[in-house]
Amino acid sequence: MKATALKIALAAGLTMGVATGAMAQQKNVTIGVSIPAATHGWTGGVVYHAQETAKALEKGYPGLKVIVKTSPDGASQANALDDLTSQKVDALVVLPFNSDELTNPMREIKKRGTFVTIVDRGLKDPSIQDIYVAGNNPEFGRVAGKYFVDNLKQGNVVVFRGIPTVIDEERVSNFEKALEGSGVKVIDKQYANWNRDDAFKVMQDFLSKHPKIDAVWASDDDMALGIMEAIRQAKREDIKFVLGGAGMKDMVKKVMDGDKMIPADVSYPPSMISTAMGVTAAHFYSNAPMRGTYVLNAELITKDNAKNHYFPDSPF
Amino acid sequence: MKATALKIALAAGLTMGVATGAMAQQKNVTIGVSIPAATHGWTGGVVYHAQETAKALEKGYPGLKVIVKTSPDGASQANALDDLTSQKVDALVVLPFNSDELTNPMREIKKRGTFVTIVDRGLKDPSIQDIYVAGNNPEFGRVAGKYFVDNLKQGNVVVFRGIPTVIDEERVSNFEKALEGSGVKVIDKQYANWNRDDAFKVMQDFLSKHPKIDAVWASDDDMALGIMEAIRQAKREDIKFVLGGAGMKDMVKKVMDGDKMIPADVSYPPSMISTAMGVTAAHFYSNAPMRGTYVLNAELITKDNAKNHYFPDSPF
Repeated sequence: MKATALKIALAAGLTMGVATGAMAQQKNVTIGVSIPAATHGWTGGVVYHAQETAKALEKGYPGLKVIVKTSPDGASQANALDDLTSQKVDALVVLPFNSDELTNPMREIKKRGTFVTIVDRGLKDPSIQDIYVAGNNPEFGRVAGKYFVDNLKQGNVVVFRGIPTVIDEERVSNFEKALEGSGVKVIDKQYANWNRDDAFKVMQDFLSKHPKIDAVWASDDDMALGIMEAIRQAKREDIKFVLGGAGMKDMVKKVMDGDKMIPADVSYPPSMISTAMGVTAAHFYSNAPMRGTYVLNAELITKDNAKNHYFPDSPF
Repeated sequence: MKATALKIALAAGLTMGVATGAMAQQKNVTIGVSIPAATHGWTGGVVYHAQETAKALEKGYPGLKVIVKTSPDGASQANALDDLTSQKVDALVVLPFNSDELTNPMREIKKRGTFVTIVDRGLKDPSIQDIYVAGNNPEFGRVAGKYFVDNLKQGNVVVFRGIPTVIDEERVSNFEKALEGSGVKVIDKQYANWNRDDAFKVMQDFLSKHPKIDAVWASDDDMALGIMEAIRQAKREDIKFVLGGAGMKDMVKKVMDGDKMIPADVSYPPSMISTAMGVTAAHFYSNAPMRGTYVLNAELITKDNAKNHYFPDSPF
């Protein structure tokens, strides 16, 4: 009996290997993942998805070890990268705090032969990376603008900007381009730093200046929360909807539940870290070429597809 | 004993599920793959890699069915797409013969809710695709140009172009940009249609016109074969090397074996079909966002990394 059980177990083991298909060969690979700590909502989502994906990939690929490290700032992240490389990682998946502090440390790591995947915020020298995974900021603006044209058709809109950066410029200029020739008019726009409190104050200002606002492009879910609070306190009834962006779970839930003020959202998912970790693992366990640049779509989240974007266990 | 064996088998079955990690949930998904028949070398490689990857993915993802269909021309491909959709596929991975004949059929298929991944040659309306996987043509030229600057340093080079297309223009203009300020000079360039025989004739012409040629940018492995034959017949000894492109197995083998005339190659891998199929399957079996555009690097293939690009069982 024992021998039979062993034989069955062995056979099962083989089947298990085969069952993982392209990744059939047992292979010892270590992937280090370096990401910002959960200091903001979005990065909280990144940490959650990185940890979930680490577990899933380790189960899926025999011999794979994934080490996730979070860091509270750029200098700490440079140290964390040092720690990870001393553990002899084969690949690093890095969402850098900023380009300035991380470009040189990453260049040194690359020189030692480590496979490098960069996520969301690029380094100053793109030749360092093997894979780059990022959101699509021009499309983020375009998708939002199209939503206003399709759903508001005509009316007055106020626009919230984030922090003066290339990302913000790409989003806003493409939003405005999408409105061209339509009846939707931007009557005011202000920076509010992708910050809830700042957006609350800017919205109070907009409300006192403009007696009739038909809709708001918050362009960010954190800002949308501040804006909603300002509208609530002012008891204004003219505003038909607020469109945020990112895919925060509270906002996706509102979309899913048919909230009239939050009928949609535009994705800029923290789960892009999962995409990056997945394609990096595939580089080691399949024959498919994976080196390259993967720009993820900004998707319109509506009642129909909200469940695909809803992660109730994520902090974001 | 029987009961025990059954228990072990069941346990093994469960482990197998868990072992596939992110793809643990059993889920019935059908992916159709529509590609050109193996009429040319490169498409032969596409067919090989598509079939290998279909097997691997079916083993790796419980419940996944992959149907690969090849077609000899654009009109047949439109029919093949009809056949595939009548089999109720959840997704289609399509390497279109051409944009003109396939854009409308694909638009109709997309309207019915099928997930669409397009590979290599874009449709006329990019809004049809969920995922786009392609090679990087500007980088293909840049990498080749850099190879000449780094290795030839100075000398006279003749350049082979393919067919007058955007792809060809992107490759050649970036090749020439990479040479700027170096001692490498393009003394002649001609179209040879990515064709071995045409390249043979053009090279004969170059050889009779130019008494001293230091190196050749063939820009394509098929053309490189014609060029090598012309050099051999002319018994010319001045040419130091020929740089092709694509990653044909015979050329990669030469690189691997240290052939002095073929010291390197630039990848434009037919196995990009595998990348496309892999990210499409991941869309259904993981939580990671996969919709987007994945542009794969053109990689310099040298003696050091040639084994990663060598598939002896592939026809290409």
